[in-house]
Amino acid sequence: MDDRVPPANGAALQALCPDSLTFRVDSPLALAMESGATLSPVTIAYQTYGALNAGKSNALLICHALTGDQHVGNLHPVTGRGGWWETMVGPGRPFDTDRFFIICANVLGGCMGSTGPVSLNPDTGEPYGLDFPVVTIADMVRAQALLIDHLGIDTLFCVAGGSMGGMQVLQWASAYPQRVFAALPIATSARHSSQNIAFHEVGRQAIMADPDWRGGRYLTEHTLPSKGLAVARMAAHITYLSDSALHRRFGRNLQDRVARTFSFDADFQVESYLRHQGRIFVERFDPNSYLYLTRAMDYFDLAADFGGSLVNAFRGSPTRFCVVSFTSDWLFPTSDSRAIVRALNAGAASVSFVEIETDRGHDAFLLDIPELIETTRGFIDAAARARGLA
Amino acid sequence: MDDRVPPANGAALQALCPDSLTFRVDSPLALAMESGATLSPVTIAYQTYGALNAGKSNALLICHALTGDQHVGNLHPVTGRGGWWETMVGPGRPFDTDRFFIICANVLGGCMGSTGPVSLNPDTGEPYGLDFPVVTIADMVRAQALLIDHLGIDTLFCVAGGSMGGMQVLQWASAYPQRVFAALPIATSARHSSQNIAFHEVGRQAIMADPDWRGGRYLTEHTLPSKGLAVARMAAHITYLSDSALHRRFGRNLQDRVARTFSFDADFQVESYLRHQGRIFVERFDPNSYLYLTRAMDYFDLAADFGGSLVNAFRGSPTRFCVVSFTSDWLFPTSDSRAIVRALNAGAASVSFVEIETDRGHDAFLLDIPELIETTRGFIDAAARARGLA
Repeated sequence: MDDRVPPANGAALQALCPDSLTFRVDSPLALAMESGATLSPVTIAYQTYGALNAGKSNALLICHALTGDQHVGNLHPVTGRGGWWETMVGPGRPFDTDRFFIICANVLGGCMGSTGPVSLNPDTGEPYGLDFPVVTIADMVRAQALLIDHLGIDTLFCVAGGSMGGMQVLQWASAYPQRVFAALPIATSARHSSQNIAFHEVGRQAIMADPDWRGGRYLTEHTLPSKGLAVARMAAHITYLSDSALHRRFGRNLQDRVARTFSFDADFQVESYLRHQGRIFVERFDPNSYLYLTRAMDYFDLAADFGGSLVNAFRGSPTRFCVVSFTSDWLFPTSDSRAIVRALNAGAASVSFVEIETDRGHDAFLLDIPELIETTRGFIDAAARARGLA
Repeated sequence: MDDRVPPANGAALQALCPDSLTFRVDSPLALAMESGATLSPVTIAYQTYGALNAGKSNALLICHALTGDQHVGNLHPVTGRGGWWETMVGPGRPFDTDRFFIICANVLGGCMGSTGPVSLNPDTGEPYGLDFPVVTIADMVRAQALLIDHLGIDTLFCVAGGSMGGMQVLQWASAYPQRVFAALPIATSARHSSQNIAFHEVGRQAIMADPDWRGGRYLTEHTLPSKGLAVARMAAHITYLSDSALHRRFGRNLQDRVARTFSFDADFQVESYLRHQGRIFVERFDPNSYLYLTRAMDYFDLAADFGGSLVNAFRGSPTRFCVVSFTSDWLFPTSDSRAIVRALNAGAASVSFVEIETDRGHDAFLLDIPELIETTRGFIDAAARARGLA
């Protein structure tokens, strides 16, 4: 590693030397991006679980959310914690590693080994920073398609994901309908709402307000806008939970004290919890990557690519869909999922829709919610039978 | 003014030399605070409108919200904009200046002339900064009671306010039931929720993360944490609006451009709007004051002062209450107002309750919402008749 570019945190190290499989395309036109930019080389860092069958018909692609990564079913190399979707991925789990060949790739623009703003810009030998081209959900999916080609897979048995991962699922099904047998978009939307753009903008401004951000050149200048990134994470974290979940978990309980301190200490458990969330996030995530991935979500508006008609995005789709939302998710409310379902129905696609009753908020898609596990298992099993998989 | 303490912005100037009436208590024990601290001197900056009648029975106290001030019905001395509740205050308006003597005081801990963290600490001759004692809603109300005493008023005809102003209304009615003939708490709560504490904590961390905050000593050190304060305001501002209001007003519309720029510019109108809100707020509000006032709201839990029973806070109250909430207010949802109404009913108080259908969110209490105007007019007129006012 170039010693002018010290890893400022675990994320920066993983960005350059990931504990992952990697696939690299070196052609000068490796990836034509939606912005008009061309990116080369392109590296995709990914993990796989289970085995690809002889007919290459059992591949299941999982798309991760904003702060997720490819480590969906194994210990995380930075945090040492379990895979982020271990409730779903493993032997006997809905995404059964005994039956399916499961692939999960770090998104383009991410910071866990796929090409992103931490990667070295071949023109300068230094990290891209803000010279990295703005990435869209469509660009992420195009990069994943290169990986799927590389793995020799024509049609994916299923593409699944929640939140930003769900956006990629919708993009996959829309852009490559013949390559997606089944699609499972969870807690997501076909377009990012005004309120969600607003929350993302607060996070970006928090990062860019940190003088250690240095116009995005913090790696080269040996700083890290950790305070700004922590504030961004704190604000976002509130949106992942429901009011009632916060109330049930923390209420107005005090943290390690019997009375208010009449100070700005973290008197309340919810304050202490949020500060902790901010602190640990900084150790595993790259600030510029956060800017790029939030931007990709903001730019997502699938209907806009089809003359404003979401129906046209899916018209005549051969893909079987299962759309899932959660009652207490106010970031991607059920109304967003219903809009997807309406468009799929209007386009004569096969779709089932499940709204799961829970007070866990948007984060429910990551949690051990029995109805989510069973819904997923039912959909995957039925799709596997239809696909002729054992 | 001491030239070691230059006003860093309009707020700091107003904090030291307000364009307002002021009332100052110099006694060494001017104000005993809930924290156990004693504050002296205490200055209350206030405005009045209309005339106090001979019987001193027509005084109407308006309590302002977090970022409001005493300029409820006149041009604001910093922004030059109209009073913040001009829809309500004026001749022929619900708070009729031809009939009532209207008082509005900057809260203790504020930055528009009442004693707060910008005020000079008599022990050092420099601004208090974080040496200012933590203020509670009860402290604010106690300071207002000093002013009401000073004005020779025994019983207020009405105390009214929204949001943090509504908390003061509840505190007034609970602490001084014999001094409040009618009470109008709008879009408020008897206790700040976990989610609301969380949003406030994000704002505080954004301010304190700004290196120009200097541990709260920015005035002495000639800096201003404007970026941190702007981020705090941006995050808070989202919570004042509803998802649907944001969607209706901004949607995914682009700002002064025909296509996405594939950059981190404010492509979307909602981004541009939020940045603007952050920018203008910094010109009129003091960062430390923001810390103290958010803390006061977080600490508010009226039932906790009565053994956990909100009923006991109002038992046998002689005050006539009208509680108002808005359907799309997710910061102080209708359920918070219902909890107040239930307690008032259980305590055999006189209470009416109106939930107003609107998509304008929490900010609705500040807006020209016909049903709010008419509800207020009806309640005030009936109370005035009961009080024997013309």
